[in-house]
Amino acid sequence: MNYPIICISREYASGGREIGQQLAKNLNIPFYDRTIVEAAAMESGLSPEFIEKNEQKFRGSMLFNLSMGNHTVNPMGTTLTDQVFIAQREIILEIAKKGPCVIVGRCADYILRNHPNLFTVFIHADFESRKQRALEEYECDLFTIEKVIRTMDKQRSRHYHYYTDRTWGDREHYTMMLNSSQLGADLCVELLTKAIKAQAK
Amino acid sequence: MNYPIICISREYASGGREIGQQLAKNLNIPFYDRTIVEAAAMESGLSPEFIEKNEQKFRGSMLFNLSMGNHTVNPMGTTLTDQVFIAQREIILEIAKKGPCVIVGRCADYILRNHPNLFTVFIHADFESRKQRALEEYECDLFTIEKVIRTMDKQRSRHYHYYTDRTWGDREHYTMMLNSSQLGADLCVELLTKAIKAQAK
Repeated sequence: MNYPIICISREYASGGREIGQQLAKNLNIPFYDRTIVEAAAMESGLSPEFIEKNEQKFRGSMLFNLSMGNHTVNPMGTTLTDQVFIAQREIILEIAKKGPCVIVGRCADYILRNHPNLFTVFIHADFESRKQRALEEYECDLFTIEKVIRTMDKQRSRHYHYYTDRTWGDREHYTMMLNSSQLGADLCVELLTKAIKAQAK
Repeated sequence: MNYPIICISREYASGGREIGQQLAKNLNIPFYDRTIVEAAAMESGLSPEFIEKNEQKFRGSMLFNLSMGNHTVNPMGTTLTDQVFIAQREIILEIAKKGPCVIVGRCADYILRNHPNLFTVFIHADFESRKQRALEEYECDLFTIEKVIRTMDKQRSRHYHYYTDRTWGDREHYTMMLNSSQLGADLCVELLTKAIKAQAK
């Protein structure tokens, strides 16, 4: 089947990663998420832990970069955060050459915007259900959970906007946007599978 | 089947109305669009032509209201544009009491926001395909078409924001948002039918 490259963006604790995993399984194509971080680490020489901790914490300020130890600017004028992005970008371009797959996050929809067969998805959910999910899945603290969710969204949004000049979650950039708490994760997977199979005919 | 009330918002020339019509047919439930305008006309004593021409042209300015002949302010301080909205709101609340249906536009998603069984949809499309559609379906002029599309979207967005205090097309308010030019209208109808049937089980 001529499946597309499927890029999934998602709000924190909306279940987007799990939906992507199941979708990849249904379509029998590779799934990329943390694997990209690991590959980027190999590429850049930075540790996977460093990348994972800092990849979306970019605050666009010199102060942030200094506080993150990002004062080591290379001759091209890029910070460590930029180097992480560049390394991940290279990995994503390589992955896309191999054929259909599901990629979660990491600005992949933007990086692959000129790919001839791209299917972009945004998964979001009602705030209350995200709170519940964050408490159960990520063992967040009940008293700080709302702040954690808003901060995570803000980090993703800023990171995306900084590297793409696009607005994160703006309908213009997505083929399908699904509310996973209203539809349920299983139905989201079914709808995406159906849409992608119908187009691949 | 315990179908929900389905409210569809849509960008101009995205094919949202036709998708709604076909969805209502598939589910064998009533479809409301222009019929609401006609019923509101009956209710308010204004002509259907006046309502249709002016319902989404609200510019929130005294000048606009004066130029539209909206200087006849009733004792409640409402303009004719407000009276149109109020009349349509009453009709929508009445319609929703009768049972499952598809309603296109007219801030129905907001008016029915507290309904216990609501399914909200936003249909959008790539600009080029909307241009093509507007040229073919609405017989728009090639030289003004881009301006017409942007103006129509702006009017819908302002009207929606004025009466709901929400942002038109913001993912927060929709269960599913579909790009009809990337998916095709038929697939949009299929996906919506599947989602609604799955939830009504």
